[in-house]
Amino acid sequence: MIYLTRRERFSSAHRMYRPGLSDEENMSIYGKCSNPMWHGHNYVLKVTVRGEVDPETGYFMNATRLKEIMNERVVVKLDHKNMNLGTDFMQGKVATTENLAMAIWHELEAPLAAEGATLHCVRVEETENNYVEYYG
Amino acid sequence: MIYLTRRERFSSAHRMYRPGLSDEENMSIYGKCSNPMWHGHNYVLKVTVRGEVDPETGYFMNATRLKEIMNERVVVKLDHKNMNLGTDFMQGKVATTENLAMAIWHELEAPLAAEGATLHCVRVEETENNYVEYYG
Amino acid sequence: MIYLTRRERFSSAHRMYRPGLSDEENMSIYGKCSNPMWHGHNYVLKVTVRGEVDPETGYFMNATRLKEIMNERVVVKLDHKNMNLGTDFMQGKVATTENLAMAIWHELEAPLAAEGATLHCVRVEETENNYVEYYG
Amino acid sequence: MIYLTRRERFSSAHRMYRPGLSDEENMSIYGKCSNPMWHGHNYVLKVTVRGEVDPETGYFMNATRLKEIMNERVVVKLDHKNMNLGTDFMQGKVATTENLAMAIWHELEAPLAAEGATLHCVRVEETENNYVEYYG
Amino acid sequence: MIYLTRRERFSSAHRMYRPGLSDEENMSIYGKCSNPMWHGHNYVLKVTVRGEVDPETGYFMNATRLKEIMNERVVVKLDHKNMNLGTDFMQGKVATTENLAMAIWHELEAPLAAEGATLHCVRVEETENNYVEYYG
Amino acid sequence: MIYLTRRERFSSAHRMYRPGLSDEENMSIYGKCSNPMWHGHNYVLKVTVRGEVDPETGYFMNATRLKEIMNERVVVKLDHKNMNLGTDFMQGKVATTENLAMAIWHELEAPLAAEGATLHCVRVEETENNYVEYYG
Repeated sequence: MIYLTRRERFSSAHRMYRPGLSDEENMSIYGKCSNPMWHGHNYVLKVTVRGEVDPETGYFMNATRLKEIMNERVVVKLDHKNMNLGTDFMQGKVATTENLAMAIWHELEAPLAAEGATLHCVRVEETENNYVEYYG
Repeated sequence: MIYLTRRERFSSAHRMYRPGLSDEENMSIYGKCSNPMWHGHNYVLKVTVRGEVDPETGYFMNATRLKEIMNERVVVKLDHKNMNLGTDFMQGKVATTENLAMAIWHELEAPLAAEGATLHCVRVEETENNYVEYYG
Repeated sequence: MIYLTRRERFSSAHRMYRPGLSDEENMSIYGKCSNPMWHGHNYVLKVTVRGEVDPETGYFMNATRLKEIMNERVVVKLDHKNMNLGTDFMQGKVATTENLAMAIWHELEAPLAAEGATLHCVRVEETENNYVEYYG
Repeated sequence: MIYLTRRERFSSAHRMYRPGLSDEENMSIYGKCSNPMWHGHNYVLKVTVRGEVDPETGYFMNATRLKEIMNERVVVKLDHKNMNLGTDFMQGKVATTENLAMAIWHELEAPLAAEGATLHCVRVEETENNYVEYYG
Repeated sequence: MIYLTRRERFSSAHRMYRPGLSDEENMSIYGKCSNPMWHGHNYVLKVTVRGEVDPETGYFMNATRLKEIMNERVVVKLDHKNMNLGTDFMQGKVATTENLAMAIWHELEAPLAAEGATLHCVRVEETENNYVEYYG
Repeated sequence: MIYLTRRERFSSAHRMYRPGLSDEENMSIYGKCSNPMWHGHNYVLKVTVRGEVDPETGYFMNATRLKEIMNERVVVKLDHKNMNLGTDFMQGKVATTENLAMAIWHELEAPLAAEGATLHCVRVEETENNYVEYYG
C-alpha cells in the first residue's frame, strides 16, 4: 500500500455565518471571520490517495490524472469564487474549513474510485497557521 | 546604513474593477480577478526601513515598534475585510496589488519618519507566485 | 471525526545534558547540543485535536480558542526563555525535543478536553530538518 | 512511543520508462516524465522512525545517527546522480517516486533496526506539489 | 515606478562541463555537478519587470501576460528537458546557473518590451541554498 | 555583472543588553529579547557576492567555495554557540541582528575579495518575520 499526495491551490472569498442568526449573533460565534462584507484566503488543498503499486507501471494512479480530477471537481468551483454564493457543493453549509474539507471529500471519493484509487485524506490549509484533515 | 524588514499577513476579499465599466468589460480586462461576487487572498506584507545603527542600542528602530505601526496603520484595516468596501485608504482605487502597495506606502511613510526611520520598500505578495514592490 | 491543527512558534535557549554527568560525558552523548553556554532555536509547535463537527456551527472547536490554550499553557512559558532554567514543566528533564513534545502533551491534554476536544498529536519542529511527533 | 523525522535532500536525473516498450509507448504512459534525454528534480526525503524514549537520555535514537544512515545508505547514491543509470538499488525498476520510496525503505529498514529504531515512514517529495509515502 | 515579480518553476536535467576538456578535468573544475550521466533540479524562476502604473487600470502589465511570456519563451523549453541537449538558447554554453540566468534575460527582454514592460531582474534558484540574479 | 547568493543556517543563543545598564533598564529597551537567562534562534544567513562571469567556466566564483568561506569564517563560530559569550567577532557588541549582520560583513569581505568576488549583501534572518540586510 502506498500513499500519493497532490497539492493544489485556490483563492476564495467566504464568510462564516448561520442564516437563521443575526449578524451580531454570528459575530459572537465566528468573530471577524463572520464579517458581512466577506474576506478571503489562499487555500491549499492536499489530497492523498492510496493503492497497490502496479509492478508494470511503477504506480497505481497517474499524478497528472489526480491533478485533473482535483481541478475539474473542486478547484474550478472555488478558485476566484465566493464559496458561500458561487460554489454548488457548499450551498446550505456554514463555510468553515471543516465543512469545506468534508464537502471536498464527497466530491472526490467517487471519481477517484473510478480510477482505481482509494481516497485517504483531504487536507485544507486556510492560512500558514491553521489546517483541517478529514479521513472519511 | 542598514535595512530592517518586518513581515505581517492579512486575509482580505477584493475584486478588480473600474466603476464606469460593465461587468463584462471588467472581466475582459481583469479576467477572473473581476468576479462580481469577490474572491480573496492571504496577503503577505513586507515593509523595509533603513537607517544608521545607533552604537549605543545596536539598532536604529525597534522591530516591535515597526510591527505596531504596520498593524495599527495597515493590517487592522485589511485583515478579514473587503478592501474595496471596508478599507478607507483603498476607496476610489482599483484594488490591484500595485495600487495596494502604493497606498500602504502612503499610510506608513509619515509614522515611520516620526520614529526616525526611512521607509525603503513596501512589498505585497498576493500569492506564492506574484508580488509587487514599491520604493516610493 | 475531523482533525484541526494549529501552528504556533517560540524561540528558546536550551542545552541537552544530564545533571549527574560531567560536561565531557554530556558532550560525548549529545555532541554540540550540550554546549554549556547554551544555544537556541526557533521552534515550531503544531497541535492537532480531533472531534465530531457540530452541524450547527460547522466546527467542533474554535481555532482561536485552540490558539489561546496553546499560548497560555505552553508558548508563554517557552518563548524568549531558557527552557532548562525558566520553564516549569521542563524541570528535572533532559531538554530533548522528545521530552519537550511529551511535556507539552501533558500541559495541553486536560484544558483541551475541557473544551470538548481530544488531543491527537503534538509535533515539535526544532529545525527545518528535524521534528518529533507524540500521540500520547 | 515517539516519532522522530529527519529531512535530507538530493538532486537527481531520472526518466520513467519500461525497457520493453518503445519511446512512443513510454511517452503515452508517462508523458513528459519519459523524455529520453532525462530531466531531474530536487528531491526531499523525510524518514520517520519510532521508539520508546529512554528516560536516561531523553531520546531513543540520536538524530545525528539517523542523518548519517540516511546519507550513507541513500543520499550518497542519489545526489548528483542519474537514478536510472547510477543508483544500485533502482536497477531493474521503473524510476517512479513510488518505486523510489519503496526502494529507500528496503535500504534503511535493517540499519535502523540495528540502532534500535523502527522505521515508520519513508516520504519522498518530487516537487512542491507531489509526494509519496510508504509505511512498509 | 513599480516592480512586479512572477514565479514559475521547471524541472531539468543538466551537467556542467566544457566540451574541450576531459571528464576528469571537468570534474576537477565543477565537482559532482559535472557527472557525465547528468543530474537535475527543480529550478525556480523569478522574473521582475518594472513600469509606471496606469491610473485607469491600476497596473502597467497584466500578471497573466507575464506568466504566458515566461512559459512560452522559457519554461516550455526547459521543463522536463535536458538543458544541455534540448534547450535551444543554452546551446554552446556551459550549463551554469549564471549562464542560464543571462540566457533567460535575452529570451525575455524583447517580448516584455513589446508589452510596455522593462525587464528588471531574472533570478534563478537552483536549490533552496543557491540562487543567481542578473540585472542586464 | 551577476549576483550569486548562498544560504546557510546556524542555531545560537543570545541576549540583547548593554553592559553598563541594569537588567531592568535593558528589559525596558530590548523587552523579552533581554531575558538574562538567554533565548535563541535558528538564524538564516544569506550572503550575496557579485562579479563578471568568466566565459570559460560560466561563473565568477564557485558556490562550493562560497559555502566553505561562510562556514569557516562565520557559521562555525555561531552554530550551537552563545553569540554573546562564545563568538569572537561579537565581543563588545550588543547582540542585535543589525550588529550581527555588520560583523559578519567584516569577517567575509577580505576572504571573498581574495577569491575575486565582491561582497554585495549580508542578510540575517532571525525569525520568519524579521530580517536585516547590510550592503557595506
